[in-house]
Order: sequence, then structure tokens, then C-alpha cells
Amino acid sequence: MDLVEVAAVGTTVDLTLQAASDERVSAVTAALERSECRVRHVSDRTFLYHLGGKIEVAPRVAVRTRQDLSLAYTPGVGRVASAIARQPSDAWTLTAKGTSVAIATDGSAVLGLGALGPLAALPVMEGKALLFKNFGGVNAYPICLDTRTPEALVDAVAAVSPGFGGINLEDIAAPGCFEVEAELQRRLEIPVFHDDQHGTAIVVMAAVMNACRLTDRALADLRAVIVGCGAAGTAVAEALLRAGVHELVIFDRAGVLTSRPDAPPHHARLAARSNPRGVASLAGALSGADLFVGTARRGSVDPAVLALMAPRPIVFALANPDPEVFAEELGLDAVIATGRSDFPNQINNSLCFPGFFKGALAARATCVTPLMKEAATRAIAGAVSDEELALGVIVPSMFQVRVHEQVAAEVAEAWTLEHPPGSSPGHSTLPTWS
Amino acid sequence: MDLVEVAAVGTTVDLTLQAASDERVSAVTAALERSECRVRHVSDRTFLYHLGGKIEVAPRVAVRTRQDLSLAYTPGVGRVASAIARQPSDAWTLTAKGTSVAIATDGSAVLGLGALGPLAALPVMEGKALLFKNFGGVNAYPICLDTRTPEALVDAVAAVSPGFGGINLEDIAAPGCFEVEAELQRRLEIPVFHDDQHGTAIVVMAAVMNACRLTDRALADLRAVIVGCGAAGTAVAEALLRAGVHELVIFDRAGVLTSRPDAPPHHARLAARSNPRGVASLAGALSGADLFVGTARRGSVDPAVLALMAPRPIVFALANPDPEVFAEELGLDAVIATGRSDFPNQINNSLCFPGFFKGALAARATCVTPLMKEAATRAIAGAVSDEELALGVIVPSMFQVRVHEQVAAEVAEAWTLEHPPGSSPGHSTLPTWS
Repeated sequence: MDLVEVAAVGTTVDLTLQAASDERVSAVTAALERSECRVRHVSDRTFLYHLGGKIEVAPRVAVRTRQDLSLAYTPGVGRVASAIARQPSDAWTLTAKGTSVAIATDGSAVLGLGALGPLAALPVMEGKALLFKNFGGVNAYPICLDTRTPEALVDAVAAVSPGFGGINLEDIAAPGCFEVEAELQRRLEIPVFHDDQHGTAIVVMAAVMNACRLTDRALADLRAVIVGCGAAGTAVAEALLRAGVHELVIFDRAGVLTSRPDAPPHHARLAARSNPRGVASLAGALSGADLFVGTARRGSVDPAVLALMAPRPIVFALANPDPEVFAEELGLDAVIATGRSDFPNQINNSLCFPGFFKGALAARATCVTPLMKEAATRAIAGAVSDEELALGVIVPSMFQVRVHEQVAAEVAEAWTLEHPPGSSPGHSTLPTWS
Repeated sequence: MDLVEVAAVGTTVDLTLQAASDERVSAVTAALERSECRVRHVSDRTFLYHLGGKIEVAPRVAVRTRQDLSLAYTPGVGRVASAIARQPSDAWTLTAKGTSVAIATDGSAVLGLGALGPLAALPVMEGKALLFKNFGGVNAYPICLDTRTPEALVDAVAAVSPGFGGINLEDIAAPGCFEVEAELQRRLEIPVFHDDQHGTAIVVMAAVMNACRLTDRALADLRAVIVGCGAAGTAVAEALLRAGVHELVIFDRAGVLTSRPDAPPHHARLAARSNPRGVASLAGALSGADLFVGTARRGSVDPAVLALMAPRPIVFALANPDPEVFAEELGLDAVIATGRSDFPNQINNSLCFPGFFKGALAARATCVTPLMKEAATRAIAGAVSDEELALGVIVPSMFQVRVHEQVAAEVAEAWTLEHPPGSSPGHSTLPTWS
């Protein structure tokens, strides 16, 4: 309690308290109002933190004199514009393009909250921009797009793309997100990366690799079950298949994935390549399984069914904010990971995207390749040493600077190995003035 | 000359020199190559200034701990996103929307250089973003759009608009720019301002007002001639007409503006309201005229014809980088202004746009009104005191902080007088946590 003012009409104090929920705040406020207090103003740490926005555009050069102005703007900038018109690849060094990405969303699947729209998505994109800069030194611009169809979203992102060295797609609902990403990558000569798919899959795969290290399993021999087949679940499934996991069963809301004619294409594609033993139930799939990955919602799997898994199973309950199952409900000797920061083993995309784009930009990659994603996976997994590896430490902390540096270095190297300098049209020789 | 290295193969030096043009640099380089020197690398102050870009995205809040991360990103940011979904106007305080504008271009008319395209326009937009922040504290994002028609440009700007509190259109060719601006302002509930039109017109009108103060003329009595009727010339003509100047004759490439059926609409509209005496030639129009405004190109008016103007005429030769006519060619006792920083009386939009948007954002204006533009004009003109006013001082320096503050204050006041708080749907009451 801090004293603000003592006046004839009464005493004003600042009262700071920790509350578990908005409802508790309302209850406390109401109780105070019922007493002799008058509550003039209620504020909140989270909302105060966001006031005025979390990012800004800052100058990298000084404009103090008329001379500076003639370099930064007319007439000097005209020479730079003309140089780029003659040699477009010069934009990578003469502008911020080479360090900038667009975080593009239509707000159709904001966090786990649904289609809140592009404006309500803005604080999330700003938060992401903050992490891009903080962990990767990348300039990320929130681009919240008021579009209503995947086609319009593709057109809008393509239109806005010239100023950026990469596109991070974010919070776009499945199944539209798959076609949006594929079509944009076809049209653009910069990396396009839907973080909800690949960022999640990369961090999950790193965690799976380390869980295998810890429990002496071979990745390709895993019997795996995925519950939830939206953007994240689909990408995790694709990554497991690519890693050689063939004993994979995937469940959606409606049950095990099928190739029925009315199934969405991303489900049909996965159905054809999974469930080799033809199990029909979640209990059947989980009996003796090594790995469970939930990208669904709280309650979508019964803890009793998870108890059917193999000894010392790997259980990733990634639903946000409440995981499919809590560790205490499980009561097993299991390797458990969630999306939450208040439990061990947080599966968080922040481990991947800052370094991933930093590396892709440094290499001037013209698209995202599977080898770049595998490189990022290896870098994240490798950031946990044998000495550090433990039941509660299968992923590194995102506050370890070296994780992001290592991701960037390995992603850039993966691109460069596939595309030696000179082999790609996007990779110009350095201009004479650089 | 700075010594870099002395080695067996020779001595390496850094040679710094001042050159008047690119051609001179090439000549010096060639001469050095012909001597016993080898030129390893040529660099240039202007290009070095632009290396890596002129702006960046910077954090406004710290992310040092897991606790910070839970505020900036999940789960904390989810509460902020939900709050904005419930009450969209809260985005003005809980995100950077309220301090941010998009600088949108299709690169169809970059400076005076033509249709260089969106990528080559990027260094210009970055320069503008730099001035927005430096002079107005406004966060301006370069949005360089790869669109081919005015309709596609409108759709792209509308799509990208949710995250911004205003749209600064820039370097868009006439006549498309007129419809693009009008249609966007119809569709969006934030100010849309084509700077090449209105920024120029506002600064020109401020300079005209001060030239009238200096030469004891009444604005409405001016006999005025405009040469060049693109974006800038059109806006200046509209502003002069609105200020009561009826003795106005406007010339395009083809001669005096007409209402011929094949004339573009913006020419036909102006033709119907100008040239009351029906003059047919530039010499006829300039005989005895008080004000000449050139927004065309070097050589588009003969200095001998300008000599026909009234005594102590006002001559604004605004073509960039070379004005229609230089003061020494004119040899008159005239009030002369140009777009150049190396002559007195630089007519530069930087005097207007940072303060204009700062004021519009502060007032949460939902569109640009004529009164806001007039307020900006008055603020810029008023920034030159009676004591300061002189032949070489009819506009203030853009390095005077108070100019931008005054423009912002008067623009905001103009909006608020027209739209008292509560009268506008865009003007929400302050939320409880602000």
C-alpha cells in the first residue's frame, strides 16, 4: 500500500495485490466498494505492460543536420533507389530488407482463442516481434491483414513482400494455412514459414530426440500417437514421418484419421501414410506406445488411457493454456512436456523462429527447405548437453543466447550446403560499395 | 589518405575524396587504375550511410525473465487480445496502433525518377520513416506494395490497415493516386493522406502566405499560375482555389488545362474552375502574375517569360532535383523558393507530415479534413515570426522542434473542434485500466 495523498475529502492510496484471475479482481473491487473506500481506478500488470505497444520503429542513423537529411532523403536517397532499380539484389544491403521479416496474420486462429481477427491479433504479433529482436536481432514487422479468404490473404502477403527478407506466417487457421503457405512459397523468392506448423514441429522434434536420448530409444522405432490434427499436429506428423517413424497413428476430433472422400486434403494425405496396423481406437493406439503428442485441448485424452503406454513413456501435452493432461493426473514415470512456462520442459516456438530467420536471412535463402528445418531441430536438441539432459531438461531455455546463435548458424549452413554461393539467382555477388 | 597496410606486394591506403558526381568517381578510379595503383574497392558516403537500412524495430519493453515472457507473449498477451476482440478501440492504447502509420507505396512515381517499383522505393520509405520518428515521434512502417493497378493497391493498403492509426500514401503516380486516396478514405476509419499531394500543398500554401506577408499582398487577390498538374500541382491548385484565389491558370505538358472530353478527370475538374480570363499561352498567363508555382521539370518555363510577372513576384520552382529555373537565370527581385536544401526557402514536406500525423493520431482522427490541412498550413506559416520573415526566410527550418509540435497541436485541435469527444465512433471512452 503506497500513500498518494491525504486531503480533507479523504486519503488516497495505491493498493497493489496479487490476484489469481479477473474474477478475483472484481470480487476485491466490489468488497472495497462495499466498505468505506471508493475505488477510483483499477489497473493490471499485464495491461500496463502493453500500454502504448511493445515495439517501436527506431532510427539506425542520425538526422541532425541538413547534410544528414540530404543523405537520408532527397537528393541522396535517389541514387540509392536508382541503384536498387538497376540491381534489385542490392536492396539486401542498402535497406533493412536483409534483416527484416513480416509477421503476417489474418487473425483467423489467434493463440488458442479462435478467429479474433487481425486487430486483436496485433498484441500477439508485437510480442512475437519483440522476441524476434530480443533473441535473433531480427527486425520483425506485425502485418495484421484484414482478409476473408486464403486467396485474398495470399495476395495481400505477396503484395507486401518486397520490403522483407522473409515471411513468418502466424495464427492462420487450418486447413487454409497449408495452401496459403504453399502458394506464397511458390510465388515469392524469400523464405515463407508458418510458425504454428514448423516452429512447433521443430521444437517438438528436438524434444523427442532428447527424450529418446534420455530413455535409450531409437527415434525411428518409436510407436507414436498424435491427438489433434490442425496446423501443429499436421506438421509434427509430417516431421515424424520424415524422421522415419512409421508406427504413427493420428487422431482428430472425429477419431482416427481416414482417407474418406470428405476428409480435408491434409488429413487424407496423412491418413494414407499412417496407422499401419489399422487400429481404430485411442486406447488401441496408445497401448504400448512410446510417444504421445497432444495438440488438441484439455480433456481430449483420458489419463487412464495414457497409462496403457509403454514403460517410461514420452508424453507431450501441448494444448494451451491448459494441457490435455497434467503431470499429477498422469502419475507415471514419464518424460512430460507442455506448452506452459510454469512447468519443466516448455515446448515453445521462441526456441526456433528467431534463430531460424536470422540464419535464413544471413544465407539469403530464397525458400525454406526440409534440411533447414532438420538443422534447426538438431541445433535445439544439441543445446542440451549429456550432463544437462534430465527428466525436466529435454529442451534448452530460450534465455540461453547460444541456442539462437546455434540455430542461426546451422540453418544458414544447411541452406549454403544445398545452394553454394553463385548457384542461386537470389544470391548476388557483393556490390562494389559494400 | 589513411595507411591500411604495408606488405611485400605493396602498400594499401584508404583514399577519401570529395567528388561532384558518379562520373567524376569513375574518372578518378580509371585514372588511378592507369597509374601504378590497383583500386580494390570504391565506396561512397551516401551508400555507406544506407548500409543495413536506416531503421529498425526496437523493443519498448524488456524481456529478461520467464515472467516478462509470460506478459509479452503467452499466456498474458491472450488476455490483451481478448480485450481488443471485445472492444476494438482498446487497440489504440494496448498496442502500437495509436502511434503507428504505414508509409504505403507501389513505387509507381519514386521521387522524380519514375516507376522504379516497390523494392527500389524502399530506401525512400525508410528515409521517410526516419523523419517521421525524428521530427514527430511517430512509428512509421515502410509498406512497399507489389501491385499493378490502383484497385489492387487499394485492396492491399486496406488489407494491411488494421495495425495502423493512419496511412501515409507516397510516391504513387497520377492520376491513379487520386482515386486510390479517395477510395481508401471511404473504406477506412483512419486518416489517409497522400503526402505528394497534400504535404506539398500545405507547405506551398504556408510559403505563399508568408510571401504575401512579406510583399504586402492579399492571398485571395493573387494572380497565380501553376505549371505541372500531377499529384503536387493538382493539390496546390485545389488549395489555392479553396483559399479564394480565383485568378488561377494551370498548365500541363499540353498547354493550358481544358475540359476536353479526353482530359483526365482531375484536369477537367480544375479546368472548369480556373482560367477565368481565358488566356491561352504561358506568356499571357504570366504577364502581370503575382505567383508562379512549378511542379514540372527543369526548362518547362523560359526565364524571359517569368520576367513578365508583376514587380517583386513570388516564384516557386519546385521540380526536383533541378528546379524549373535557377535564381541566377531569373535575375529579378523575386521571392524565390525551390525544393533544394542548398538554396534558401526549401519547400520540403518534412515540415508537415511528422507533425500532421502526430496530431491526427493524438486526436484519433478517423479521416483527414480540409480544416486539418488548413491548420497545418497556418502552423507552418506562423512558425516564421515577423522579425524572422525575409526574402530568404519564408518557411521555417525543419530542424526547429517547435514547428512539428505546433503542427501537431493545431491539427489535433482542428479535428477535435470539428468532432468533439463522444461524437465520433472512433473516439472511445478511455478503458478502466488506462
